[in-house]
Amino acid sequence: MSTYAIVLAAGKGTRMKSELAKVLHEIAGRPMVNWVLGALEAVNVDGSVAVIGHQADAVAAILPEGVVAAVQERQLGTADAVKVGLAALDLAPDDTVLVLPGDMPLITGATLDELLMLHASSGSVATLLTAILEDPTGYGRILRTDGAVAGIVEQRDGTDEQLAVREVNTSVYAFQAGPLQEFIENVATDNSQGEYYLTDIVGLFASEGLPMSGIAGDPVEVMGVNTHAHLATAADHLRNRINTHWLEAGVWMQDPARVYIDAGVELGPGVRLYPNVYLENGTKVGAGSEIGPDVFATGATIGETCKVWYSVIRDSSLGDGATAGPYVSLRQGVAMASGTKAGTFVEMKNTSLGTGSKVPHLSYMGDATIGEKSNIGAGSITCNWDGFTKNPTVIGDRVFIGSDSMLVAPVEIGDDAFTGAGSVITNDVAPGSLAVERSPQKEIKGYAARRRRRAGEEA
Amino acid sequence: MSTYAIVLAAGKGTRMKSELAKVLHEIAGRPMVNWVLGALEAVNVDGSVAVIGHQADAVAAILPEGVVAAVQERQLGTADAVKVGLAALDLAPDDTVLVLPGDMPLITGATLDELLMLHASSGSVATLLTAILEDPTGYGRILRTDGAVAGIVEQRDGTDEQLAVREVNTSVYAFQAGPLQEFIENVATDNSQGEYYLTDIVGLFASEGLPMSGIAGDPVEVMGVNTHAHLATAADHLRNRINTHWLEAGVWMQDPARVYIDAGVELGPGVRLYPNVYLENGTKVGAGSEIGPDVFATGATIGETCKVWYSVIRDSSLGDGATAGPYVSLRQGVAMASGTKAGTFVEMKNTSLGTGSKVPHLSYMGDATIGEKSNIGAGSITCNWDGFTKNPTVIGDRVFIGSDSMLVAPVEIGDDAFTGAGSVITNDVAPGSLAVERSPQKEIKGYAARRRRRAGEEA
Amino acid sequence: MSTYAIVLAAGKGTRMKSELAKVLHEIAGRPMVNWVLGALEAVNVDGSVAVIGHQADAVAAILPEGVVAAVQERQLGTADAVKVGLAALDLAPDDTVLVLPGDMPLITGATLDELLMLHASSGSVATLLTAILEDPTGYGRILRTDGAVAGIVEQRDGTDEQLAVREVNTSVYAFQAGPLQEFIENVATDNSQGEYYLTDIVGLFASEGLPMSGIAGDPVEVMGVNTHAHLATAADHLRNRINTHWLEAGVWMQDPARVYIDAGVELGPGVRLYPNVYLENGTKVGAGSEIGPDVFATGATIGETCKVWYSVIRDSSLGDGATAGPYVSLRQGVAMASGTKAGTFVEMKNTSLGTGSKVPHLSYMGDATIGEKSNIGAGSITCNWDGFTKNPTVIGDRVFIGSDSMLVAPVEIGDDAFTGAGSVITNDVAPGSLAVERSPQKEIKGYAARRRRRAGEEA
Repeated sequence: MSTYAIVLAAGKGTRMKSELAKVLHEIAGRPMVNWVLGALEAVNVDGSVAVIGHQADAVAAILPEGVVAAVQERQLGTADAVKVGLAALDLAPDDTVLVLPGDMPLITGATLDELLMLHASSGSVATLLTAILEDPTGYGRILRTDGAVAGIVEQRDGTDEQLAVREVNTSVYAFQAGPLQEFIENVATDNSQGEYYLTDIVGLFASEGLPMSGIAGDPVEVMGVNTHAHLATAADHLRNRINTHWLEAGVWMQDPARVYIDAGVELGPGVRLYPNVYLENGTKVGAGSEIGPDVFATGATIGETCKVWYSVIRDSSLGDGATAGPYVSLRQGVAMASGTKAGTFVEMKNTSLGTGSKVPHLSYMGDATIGEKSNIGAGSITCNWDGFTKNPTVIGDRVFIGSDSMLVAPVEIGDDAFTGAGSVITNDVAPGSLAVERSPQKEIKGYAARRRRRAGEEA
Repeated sequence: MSTYAIVLAAGKGTRMKSELAKVLHEIAGRPMVNWVLGALEAVNVDGSVAVIGHQADAVAAILPEGVVAAVQERQLGTADAVKVGLAALDLAPDDTVLVLPGDMPLITGATLDELLMLHASSGSVATLLTAILEDPTGYGRILRTDGAVAGIVEQRDGTDEQLAVREVNTSVYAFQAGPLQEFIENVATDNSQGEYYLTDIVGLFASEGLPMSGIAGDPVEVMGVNTHAHLATAADHLRNRINTHWLEAGVWMQDPARVYIDAGVELGPGVRLYPNVYLENGTKVGAGSEIGPDVFATGATIGETCKVWYSVIRDSSLGDGATAGPYVSLRQGVAMASGTKAGTFVEMKNTSLGTGSKVPHLSYMGDATIGEKSNIGAGSITCNWDGFTKNPTVIGDRVFIGSDSMLVAPVEIGDDAFTGAGSVITNDVAPGSLAVERSPQKEIKGYAARRRRRAGEEA
Repeated sequence: MSTYAIVLAAGKGTRMKSELAKVLHEIAGRPMVNWVLGALEAVNVDGSVAVIGHQADAVAAILPEGVVAAVQERQLGTADAVKVGLAALDLAPDDTVLVLPGDMPLITGATLDELLMLHASSGSVATLLTAILEDPTGYGRILRTDGAVAGIVEQRDGTDEQLAVREVNTSVYAFQAGPLQEFIENVATDNSQGEYYLTDIVGLFASEGLPMSGIAGDPVEVMGVNTHAHLATAADHLRNRINTHWLEAGVWMQDPARVYIDAGVELGPGVRLYPNVYLENGTKVGAGSEIGPDVFATGATIGETCKVWYSVIRDSSLGDGATAGPYVSLRQGVAMASGTKAGTFVEMKNTSLGTGSKVPHLSYMGDATIGEKSNIGAGSITCNWDGFTKNPTVIGDRVFIGSDSMLVAPVEIGDDAFTGAGSVITNDVAPGSLAVERSPQKEIKGYAARRRRRAGEEA
């Protein structure tokens, strides 16, 4: 007796007014449908099928490993979609089939677990996840007889008494595989859209007197996402859920509503997060590090006791005790070792910075390998692009790069070397040498007075 | 039978503790009173009068075209203000006069429409917009007899039974012009402030047995703004209203509560807005562009599929596919053509950047005309200010400006030219030439050891 | 008849999962326990004792002057902690002892005042601050007889009727000193934790028939902070309380929920605060200044009518009318006089800028003294660090520093002097002189064509 899940993910999502298929819209760094599939992971189903249709290739590409993609060629309605899903499964009659929408990103494993437990214990052919709404207008109402589910009545068909019912259908169901397979063939298209609606199967079961049950879940969890406004609301809830998890784990946040942590991010104990921090794409932050305000980090690995603020970090790493900001951009492929510093108005790209080295101000380091305990003077730049190719710069240990040094790549600065302020370094510098490119300073006395007179004349 | 509106906008707004007249305080880029006048536009009145008083000139200056400004010389109360408004209108007795406060920025056209429709159908001399409040303490309660409005009783005068009424007056009224003109002359000043209160006219109508009606509106819409706390609350509601509009139009927002879009901004389909984006002063964003986090854009025109983040854009434009940020300031008058790039730590002012040109890092371009497919090396600066005048820089097509080039304006760099890194360019450069200003690099061997010894001796 | 307070601040706060003692966690720039002690200041107690234990030295160090620290050596429970507190006081039997938790940062003086007034007027031996909760599950319920407090029943001990009570104990009490001193000795440890619980004294008083009273406070105020989620919630409430204070004082905020003002900050009238402004550590902002978006200011003194945006200001001052940003870092010890400007991508440290002077773009000024009406060209840098020591730069009045000037410290530039763009200035410059360090510009004709050919050959 196994349990399988069918996730309905074929729709276009017209009301999103987007070029993207609905279930591909991301929340906290994860396509909507994968939040649903993530909830399923928690209940250990024996197999999951995602029924896809609109932008099928793109949706198939983001499905987690192990999820079977079944393509619904024409969008003939939810009952048809379930048939497509059933065709992809090898079911025994007493197996359980969980059916749920792919646009319900807030559903949790705990709720699905309760649904499956009730289904197993009740012996029902169908167990419905329902919700009790303050205002049920527009939803299909759950009709119950002696507690058991006796049917669903749509808004347009209900009597006043039926419409007073606040328990509504959510489109999440647990079915016995046998009856599902049998009765889904009888679902018809006699409705205004001419579609096969899964919800009709409840009436078919009811007309045969088959036992059904229902359990009310959290109305928030069963919220469907149909518009960008819904998407933002769902994101708000998920942000709250993710951040509560990290707060309980001992992470400090000055204002959790303004911290944006994607699924899959890892934070150590004692991490401090100021507002407007975005942690995306597997970013890791080590114990005791302080991040923000205003940090966008994607694919970043940040060590322990680091401080990063007012900075953008992409696909780069900081060793323990490293600091960055305010106003740093690590564009990609930057490896800052322990105790390094990227100061103010510093951009780096494809660059490694050895232990204890510093780039304090107004510099661009690109395609550079910098050793340990070196200091890069303010305004220094690796001239890595000559208009034709990108070239590397190598800087040794304990090097002092004077302010405003232009390191014209390819070039190598040996250990312990110095460069003079304002020098354009086109040739390699030997270890321990001072390289300087400069003219003598000249002073033109009385210039200011003459210049001001001239300006006055011209004016 | 025409409909006119009188908006009461004369007050000082003492509780704002501000030097600005109350109705001039802006919300989402628009003075408060213009939100009220905007709601009126939706109901197509035949004419509007704004009664102004405090800082009358400043208020008159911001009124939309077509709105008549009538000055109340002395602030003698709301009934007096209405008299001033009436004097500016040429009314027939059966015209309708809508009276509403200028500090009620959340009022909507839909609500005013409902009020006017009830007024027209009910044959009342006055129709009141009311609100049902959880806690009506302090407000004038609406007394009704057989559903019709029979009077207003103030907090201090009410019996316990009357004070239990939760329907209150909002100070928005539709009047028959004839009775309004007649009875407003009878409003007296027998109150503690010695002012003429418009609300008293309801009692005068009632004492003559004239028919009045009332309709309850949304308590949020009729919120008056008297303090900066109220102003912030109103701003929050308007932000929500504006952002919901754009979400429904297919704009993605990661966190709509943190997106600040002024009235008059235009967004294309598929625009993506990250948090802390401010779009002000007629800013336009084309389809598919991604803006934010952290972008302040005022008077900006941003094309399609652009990416702008962590940047400040003022009175400048970006062509399709252009990118800016992180950390860019377009100060004013910058025209970035299609496919251009302003990278990191780049400021531009009064500068045009031709198709495909790039300013990737740490540069200031001011008063410059840059052609197509040119690349401005990191750290390059147009020296446009000589201490006396601003001078222009002209850079051609396909130019390679080496890193840290100082372009001492006025100067012109021809098509296909190069400048060497670290060069100060004071003379024009011919097309296809390389200009370089540089001394030979010298190397002083053993310098580091000597210098360190000396530092040790001195220490 | 005096009133004393005992604040219980000994706990570790295990659920914070933090290395810091619980009461040391800060909210709005102030350790949690000092918010409680701040509320006490408002009720003018004759003396306060903080009972400390975990990290006693660190907690003692942050207590306000006048608060007695009493160390509880072993954490034997709240009754034991009160005993420790009592031992530090010289009490008369009819004195009042207020006992309150150190982790209740939202408690207000007004509430404590009400509690003390009821205590004084009721002649009770104990007066409890209670709260009426929607869901009281888990809390000790208040049992009343004829309105008087008759006991507290814990969740596990309550009858159904008792558990239906929604009034709960908050752990804030006013006691008569005599009965408190007598009965606290009788509190036992017969509970699962084996601790002395202060709450048990209520039962002891009840069993002797001594009179007790209770008064319900705001459930928000009596919220205890046990986790980082609680801490964030408390911070949200305090932020709202602080910001409402400033809004009522006439400060404009575009979005008060996103403005972070610490206790002890001072704002003048007409200040305008955009979102994501952090004002910490005694920062002062003068009348009419506009701060934000995105300003982090700590220990800053900002004058009147300044504009600061997208900047980080630490331990620095701006005179009236000064402007900073976007993208400025004043690192420490910067004094910008009236009418000065720090423009875009400018960092300063230990630097004074005289009246009217400007540092508009891409500069680092460190350890510099700059006179009045001087202009620092874009890209200019004080080379204050030679690899061994920090050296000063002195710039006079009305100086024009050309773009990309490297000022190799120690160096002095006289009044009215000029430096040429791109010059490395190693020697002092006399007043009125122009100093320039530059080679002649050379032009290599046809370079581009040859270079492109070569690149083609190589490719």
